[in-house]
Amino acid sequence: MFSAKTQVRVRYGETDQMGYCYYGNYAQFFEIGRVEALRSLGMSYREMEEEGIMLPVLDYSVKYIKPALYDDLLTIKTTIPEIPRARIRFEYEIYNEKEELISKAETTLVFINKENMRPRSAPEDFIAKLEAL
Amino acid sequence: MFSAKTQVRVRYGETDQMGYCYYGNYAQFFEIGRVEALRSLGMSYREMEEEGIMLPVLDYSVKYIKPALYDDLLTIKTTIPEIPRARIRFEYEIYNEKEELISKAETTLVFINKENMRPRSAPEDFIAKLEAL
Amino acid sequence: MFSAKTQVRVRYGETDQMGYCYYGNYAQFFEIGRVEALRSLGMSYREMEEEGIMLPVLDYSVKYIKPALYDDLLTIKTTIPEIPRARIRFEYEIYNEKEELISKAETTLVFINKENMRPRSAPEDFIAKLEAL
Amino acid sequence: MFSAKTQVRVRYGETDQMGYCYYGNYAQFFEIGRVEALRSLGMSYREMEEEGIMLPVLDYSVKYIKPALYDDLLTIKTTIPEIPRARIRFEYEIYNEKEELISKAETTLVFINKENMRPRSAPEDFIAKLEAL
Repeated sequence: MFSAKTQVRVRYGETDQMGYCYYGNYAQFFEIGRVEALRSLGMSYREMEEEGIMLPVLDYSVKYIKPALYDDLLTIKTTIPEIPRARIRFEYEIYNEKEELISKAETTLVFINKENMRPRSAPEDFIAKLEAL
Repeated sequence: MFSAKTQVRVRYGETDQMGYCYYGNYAQFFEIGRVEALRSLGMSYREMEEEGIMLPVLDYSVKYIKPALYDDLLTIKTTIPEIPRARIRFEYEIYNEKEELISKAETTLVFINKENMRPRSAPEDFIAKLEAL
Repeated sequence: MFSAKTQVRVRYGETDQMGYCYYGNYAQFFEIGRVEALRSLGMSYREMEEEGIMLPVLDYSVKYIKPALYDDLLTIKTTIPEIPRARIRFEYEIYNEKEELISKAETTLVFINKENMRPRSAPEDFIAKLEAL
Repeated sequence: MFSAKTQVRVRYGETDQMGYCYYGNYAQFFEIGRVEALRSLGMSYREMEEEGIMLPVLDYSVKYIKPALYDDLLTIKTTIPEIPRARIRFEYEIYNEKEELISKAETTLVFINKENMRPRSAPEDFIAKLEAL
């Protein structure tokens, strides 16, 4: 099990007229969470894609516990709970500056070969890095 | 059980470099689905909010079955599966122009009094309209 | 000179905590304006891209005269003021439901061959359609 | 004349199917530029708004010189070229990691009293801070 933390500040354009961070914008926060989790492992999602691997999202579920507000500096904790095969699960928790848990989420993504658009297993160096932890 | 359909066309700005509609943008499609479902019942979400009722999202889950592509004209089918009380559930299906089911989702929202930020029951005229169907 | 009109409804997720449609979201409205202007000419931006022509934006300027509000049904009037060559200019006006002009804008885009990423002239059938008006 | 720099990384959801950062997403980068410029002056846009001052955008123009790509770490240089009165101008330059200028922009915003929605002059402490530089 691997976890990493990163931070993101809520932009004005991400608020809605309720004064909350719009519920649809969290998906970008979780994307940042998983990209930065990979980076902290020494993996680059950008390079993986340049090498012909795509990683579309299969499912996504999220609970909104407390609102995120404009200018809040959020901490995203991203967890890879198990060694991935053709699919990879990420779990997420978002905390506000008072260290309150404001959101929990989960996504499943699938490794795809760009060439033939077929599922494939996770890159071996990635699995090796996770197993070495 | 009440269902309504509406359509939305995928914008260029909603695609990502995979050539898919970005997974985070579906939340706006489901928002359009529920707002137009209310409108088809003779309810206006805008007026409800002007009258002091807010409707934040509590949870949201979505499955991505096939990608939505640029310029696709999507059909969103929105269902209110049961009479709401303090909470309201919406279920969604998105179909592409070939009438393939490309996504399924579900959200729970909660009725809040803006004045005191406390949960309240769904507006009576809204319940009456649903019960009269 | 060619003009076309299309409509777009302001989404909840497009508002900000000022209660206005966020200034950054207008770019998508103008994109819709130009895509629908092309469509009304019998041109498809999607097909143009599939045939290897890209059309990135070079410059964009916009004036915000009155706010666009949640659920407003906006009318976008898009004008192609002159026959394009390697570049194409679009001018835009947005009107609200009271027929008030709420925004004016202008963009310049450039025709690019995807293959070699070099500028090229506008497709001949497109110019022919504009000249036939 | 006051300048400040801040950084932002291009998100996957900000790219489009051309593989570029979508032209409409730059507006958020410039918003980050001005908010962080204010913060580096000891001003908080959030607090200003909580104290009843709104700052909507009146006009915005931008040149796209080179594309911003996924995962690029961009540097936004924001300049306040003159002491503001009822209006405030910001100028922006965006640089990529190769220190190439990829975009230039300019916005004018207006100070508004939330209470009566009328223009007002810039807060005195803000002007004092700019004059003290």
